Amino acid sequence: MRAVVARQGVLTCEEIEPPPAPGEGQVLARTLACGICGTDLHALGHMHGFLEGLQRSGSALATDPDQPVVFGHEFCAEILDHGPGTAPRLKAGTRVVGLPYLTSAFGAEYVGYSNRYPGGFAERMVLTEKLLFEVPNGLSAELAAMTEPFAVGAHAVARANVQPPAVICVVGCGPIGLAVIAALKARGLGPVIGLDFSPGRRRFAELLGADEVVDPAVEPLAAVWARHGAGKRGPRAVGFECTGRAGMAQTVVAALPANGQLVVVSNALEASAIDQVMAFNKELDIGFSLNYTPAEFRATLADIAEGRIDAGRALTGAVAPEGVADAFKALNDPERHAKIIVKFD
Amino acid sequence: MRAVVARQGVLTCEEIEPPPAPGEGQVLARTLACGICGTDLHALGHMHGFLEGLQRSGSALATDPDQPVVFGHEFCAEILDHGPGTAPRLKAGTRVVGLPYLTSAFGAEYVGYSNRYPGGFAERMVLTEKLLFEVPNGLSAELAAMTEPFAVGAHAVARANVQPPAVICVVGCGPIGLAVIAALKARGLGPVIGLDFSPGRRRFAELLGADEVVDPAVEPLAAVWARHGAGKRGPRAVGFECTGRAGMAQTVVAALPANGQLVVVSNALEASAIDQVMAFNKELDIGFSLNYTPAEFRATLADIAEGRIDAGRALTGAVAPEGVADAFKALNDPERHAKIIVKFD
Repeated sequence: MRAVVARQGVLTCEEIEPPPAPGEGQVLARTLACGICGTDLHALGHMHGFLEGLQRSGSALATDPDQPVVFGHEFCAEILDHGPGTAPRLKAGTRVVGLPYLTSAFGAEYVGYSNRYPGGFAERMVLTEKLLFEVPNGLSAELAAMTEPFAVGAHAVARANVQPPAVICVVGCGPIGLAVIAALKARGLGPVIGLDFSPGRRRFAELLGADEVVDPAVEPLAAVWARHGAGKRGPRAVGFECTGRAGMAQTVVAALPANGQLVVVSNALEASAIDQVMAFNKELDIGFSLNYTPAEFRATLADIAEGRIDAGRALTGAVAPEGVADAFKALNDPERHAKIIVKFD
Repeated sequence: MRAVVARQGVLTCEEIEPPPAPGEGQVLARTLACGICGTDLHALGHMHGFLEGLQRSGSALATDPDQPVVFGHEFCAEILDHGPGTAPRLKAGTRVVGLPYLTSAFGAEYVGYSNRYPGGFAERMVLTEKLLFEVPNGLSAELAAMTEPFAVGAHAVARANVQPPAVICVVGCGPIGLAVIAALKARGLGPVIGLDFSPGRRRFAELLGADEVVDPAVEPLAAVWARHGAGKRGPRAVGFECTGRAGMAQTVVAALPANGQLVVVSNALEASAIDQVMAFNKELDIGFSLNYTPAEFRATLADIAEGRIDAGRALTGAVAPEGVADAFKALNDPERHAKIIVKFD
């Protein structure tokens, strides 16, 4: 089958063996669309660091960073076949999205970061049936594939449990920042201020509902909170770190006034530290938000399908598998792109 | 007047000038009793780092680390005289405890870490009248002076807002750890497990209500949570860092299972960092708790006066000002001491 293989930091479109037959509780599915995630961009060049960070955190994956991987965890797929022990609720032909977790004989596997199971940049995938949700009629595969990144935003905002009054700065308006903005506005929270050096990204932030956008080269983060009177005696200053850049969470810690709140939504794949003494003296709350629950995933699919989240605003391109390597490069230009979807015919 | 002066890391009992006359909103008070705080022990040798950390965090004090300081912020005192603009509610002769904050022409001052205003290791103090609370009849000055450290515990537990079911480990059973244990048990939370290498400190933890005590040399922190089944699929693992040792918050981060919660209650006065990648992959919540609100302070005073918190269990010694330098040394022996109070006659 056709697949985009990541091997030693290089992406090539080639023919590979199909995935193993679906095991207990698993299904075989045909990929329809799959988004390119910022973590894929980072992982391509930093697979060792990515896996080492998970291992050091006690959540090791059964993945060898020197072996090939087929990325892709933001998928929409059509069910082809069922393994043993699957419920009959999702018949062959059903279009699904779902959580990218699997278990193999070797341990925990993450669809899209596994050596054994290809992710959504391949024509076929093995998925865990009970983690899948049917895509409602009428929602395109491309938009359905946006469920995963928007669920990341929904989970971060649910975990943050922001108490008004709050002045909320979203640092970085790539796909995760946009998902956070959408989730904040879906809850009626604000003001939500999107910060990004890129005018294109700031425009996306406005489209997703940011009340205000700021170029941090013109007005630094600390000044934005100060202008809104956020701090110990005013509304709470809340920051969502959505850049994934090493050191950026600490930059937000340094900018926050006393009693502020930081939510780290994007994973820094390189070593990054937070200054404990500064966080203590400012009496901050720092939450780290990873992934989503099945309930949040399902609710986000409904939000997109029923128009409460306008996910299409963040969808800026689609490519065939042969175009994925170029799409990874194109995503380095924040002016043009937020999310690019890989499509199979 | 007599005072214990900290000068270049050395404590001496000597005669010094009395404090300035009470200004707007201030009172002059006679010190009755004042606890020795762990921060005093650290600050004696690390005054530069302590102040530099505050400055870097945007809360600089008007204190020169090379000039003498009279420590003491856990005070009980008797009102002697009133400055202009004070309310008549606290008459001369009233015994008070209160929050150790002042403002001078030079900026924010912290009673006990100021060059201009002596703290409670001196016979006289200037205090902010509206931050003081009358000590109820019958409560001794020594026990009333325990309000401040126990208010630190009450604030940390209030901020943490622990949601049961949770397995709560209190790391370090010095005065702050004991205050946290007391506040947790006053809220009916548990199991509360006190961890300390010292048998004496573990005994204090039991006296303050810990459901269990553990010697981390015998059973490491991660094993305690594992034994109780805490983690992603069980009760939440919650840790309170109460040692103030550099690097200990990160040790707790490393020990926490996924979805855990860390509350940093003790200030690390030396540089300390938290591994962001590990905290992210474990999806932790990390709160930093500093000081207390006036309402928490008042409620803690009532808890002690009315017996809901048995503060006397943590009170292990009393010294005259001449004995303070030796008391600082004695506090390095965790077997004997939790809190030592300085008394003036």
